[in-house]
Order: sequence, then structure tokens, then C-alpha cells
Amino acid sequence: MVLAKLDLTRAIRSAACRRSHSKPNPRLGNDVYRLKVAVEPCRDVLAAFRRRGAAVIHTREGHRPDLSDAPRHKVERGDPTMRIGAPGPMGRILVRGEPGHDIIAELYPIKGEPVIDKPGKGAFYQTDLDLMLHNRGIDTLFVCGVTTEVCVNTTVREANDRGYRCIVLSDCCASYFPEFHDMGLKMIKAQGGIFGSVASSRALLAGMELAAVA
Amino acid sequence: MVLAKLDLTRAIRSAACRRSHSKPNPRLGNDVYRLKVAVEPCRDVLAAFRRRGAAVIHTREGHRPDLSDAPRHKVERGDPTMRIGAPGPMGRILVRGEPGHDIIAELYPIKGEPVIDKPGKGAFYQTDLDLMLHNRGIDTLFVCGVTTEVCVNTTVREANDRGYRCIVLSDCCASYFPEFHDMGLKMIKAQGGIFGSVASSRALLAGMELAAVA
Repeated sequence: MVLAKLDLTRAIRSAACRRSHSKPNPRLGNDVYRLKVAVEPCRDVLAAFRRRGAAVIHTREGHRPDLSDAPRHKVERGDPTMRIGAPGPMGRILVRGEPGHDIIAELYPIKGEPVIDKPGKGAFYQTDLDLMLHNRGIDTLFVCGVTTEVCVNTTVREANDRGYRCIVLSDCCASYFPEFHDMGLKMIKAQGGIFGSVASSRALLAGMELAAVA
Repeated sequence: MVLAKLDLTRAIRSAACRRSHSKPNPRLGNDVYRLKVAVEPCRDVLAAFRRRGAAVIHTREGHRPDLSDAPRHKVERGDPTMRIGAPGPMGRILVRGEPGHDIIAELYPIKGEPVIDKPGKGAFYQTDLDLMLHNRGIDTLFVCGVTTEVCVNTTVREANDRGYRCIVLSDCCASYFPEFHDMGLKMIKAQGGIFGSVASSRALLAGMELAAVA
């Protein structure tokens, strides 16, 4: 099993900070502060996985500085001042190597934990995630990250088609939109678990503790 | 541009017929009759694309009879009597070549229209869809099919990561669950169109008529 942690980059902190003195991020159209609720549960799960010596993989969406890997239709969307590659308060938006693209301090990778830079919402598209999981014989993914309905849902759908079993940790995911968070989780577990399962981090941590005692 | 039509197979008819004398499909957990609302709008759009000589691609989810392409975690889900490969009223469930796996008569492919048999929810995974679109120089997909939150959403997410522009035709899609249909469409067009656009078939058909006159 592996803990796959998606897109918890410093940009969410930046946006949260800006909230106090500016309107919500117009490109994203909403209140980015909501994403921060996932950080603490995610930190607890990350610590538990590390104590157990279980694999952890970090991912983050972003493009090469020349945007040669960014599809035109993706770049041209939304407010021009907030597009991919445009200057933001933490460097160019969604560009690799910029301060906002780095993973937040609380959830920073430690030595030996791979970081996957992905050009899409799905963590499998144009990355070596599938190869890494295959090489390690991993078939079960615990998924954390933001946002629930975008990168988490897209990655879980990709994983499911590829034959992985996914357990999405509900409180370790978040969205700008509460209804998308709720529905994103419901869509995963509907119809007998059409894409995977959903559990709280508390349930997982309790299970891990029990397994350690037994 | 291309009309991509997903998973409108005879199984939806079968399930709809069974509804009158049995309980809703337990594997799918809901009322499959709801899917039929997409058929008529889909037929009108299909006819318009054909009159214009525009490309149409049909897809359907299903597995080889020996299930060697069906992931274990996918097969083992849900009620054992309604699993992939189990006998159903229109042949083995989600198995290629079975009566229920064929496309419904109203939307049947005509000569020259490719049919893609896909092993997953996403029409790009392990298929030649990307290659076909690339070879034809197509960058815009009009998407119809069922269900809105499963195969339609997964395929649109894949298409978006691959740089395609997607317009999902709202009334040409359907779900067992009205709230998933609505939210599935909202998730696509949120944040300035994070995965694509949503339009009604009426708007598209009106636009096509205008273009033909102009």
C-alpha cells in the first residue's frame, strides 16, 4: 500500500493568506482557505505511514517554465491575469520550480519519498506513477489531497481503470466548494464502490494502531 | 471536431424493460430507466453530425470473455450475482460480444464510424482513441453518453489532460442519480471550465443550422 498525496503545494497557503486582504482567487473562483482543513489530518496520516515504514508518494500539478507541456486549451482558460504561467504572489502560476509550486512545509517529503511532477489533473497521465507502483508490487492506494473533485477524483478514476484499489481519506481531501467535496466522495463510493472506497483518517489510524498491537 | 458517444449499449434498454416487473438493478443500485432520457437528444445530434459529414466515434465499456483484461478489484465489487462476467438477462454482464454489450438500435453506428471497445471508464485508457483523434487532427470533442459522473466525467478528464477541448452535451448524458448528473456537469464547467464546457443539444443544433445557412 502507498499513501498518494496530491497537490498540497504552498500555493494553497499563499491563497489562504491573501484571503485576509483581497477577494477570493478569481481564477479559481472561490475561497482557497477551505483547502487548509485537509492539512492537519493529512499530517497525522503521513506520520503514521512513516512510522510504519509504508510508502509515500507526493504529487503536484505544474508545467515546465516554457509551458511546452501545457495544452493550449488549458492555458487559455479563465482570467488572463490568473492563467498558467502568469505572475502570481508566489511566482508564476502552476510552473515548476516557483515558490508556490513547492509542497507545504507541514507535509514536506522526507528523504526517499518520491515527488511526481504531473502536467495534468490525473497523477497517472504522463508520469511514472504506474511504473513505480508496479515495480514495488503495490495495488492499494490511500489517497489524500486537493481538490476532491478535480485531482483526487481524476487520479482515483485513472487508478481504478488501471486495477488499483483506492481508499480516499475523506478529511485528508478538500475542495473550494463544499458540495463538490461531498459529491466527489459520493461518486467514488457509489454503486458498490465504482471507483473505490472512502474512509476517515481516524478510522484508518485506529486500524493501523490495532494492527500494530495485534 | 468529433462526436464522442459513450456506453449507450443495449444493456440500458434491458435494464429499463426489467424495471417494470422487477426491482432496480442491484449491482448498479438504482433506476436504470433514467438513462433512456439521453437517447432522443443523442439521436438528433448524431443525425446532425452525419448530415454535416462530421466525425462520430462510438465507445462502449466491456471486457474480453475470459476477463483477462478486467482488473480483479473491479470484478470483485458489488453483488456476486451481478458482477462483470456473471450471466444477466442480455448475456454476460459487461462482456464483449454479448447482446447487452451492443449499441442500442437508435444510435447504432453506420459504415465508417469507429467503435472503441474500452476496458475502463475512461475512453482513452488502453484504447486507440487518442491516436485516432491525433491522426485526424481533431482537437474538439462533443461528448454524449452515460453515465454523466462515471464514463462521461472520466473521459472528459482524460481528454482535458491530453489537451482536447470538450463540450459536454448536457441532455445527451444521463445518470441513475439526478444529483450526480447535475454535479457531474457542474464539476466539468466550474472554475472557468476546469475540464471543459457544457451546452444543451438544442444550442449546438441551432448553432449548426446557423452555420449551414451563413
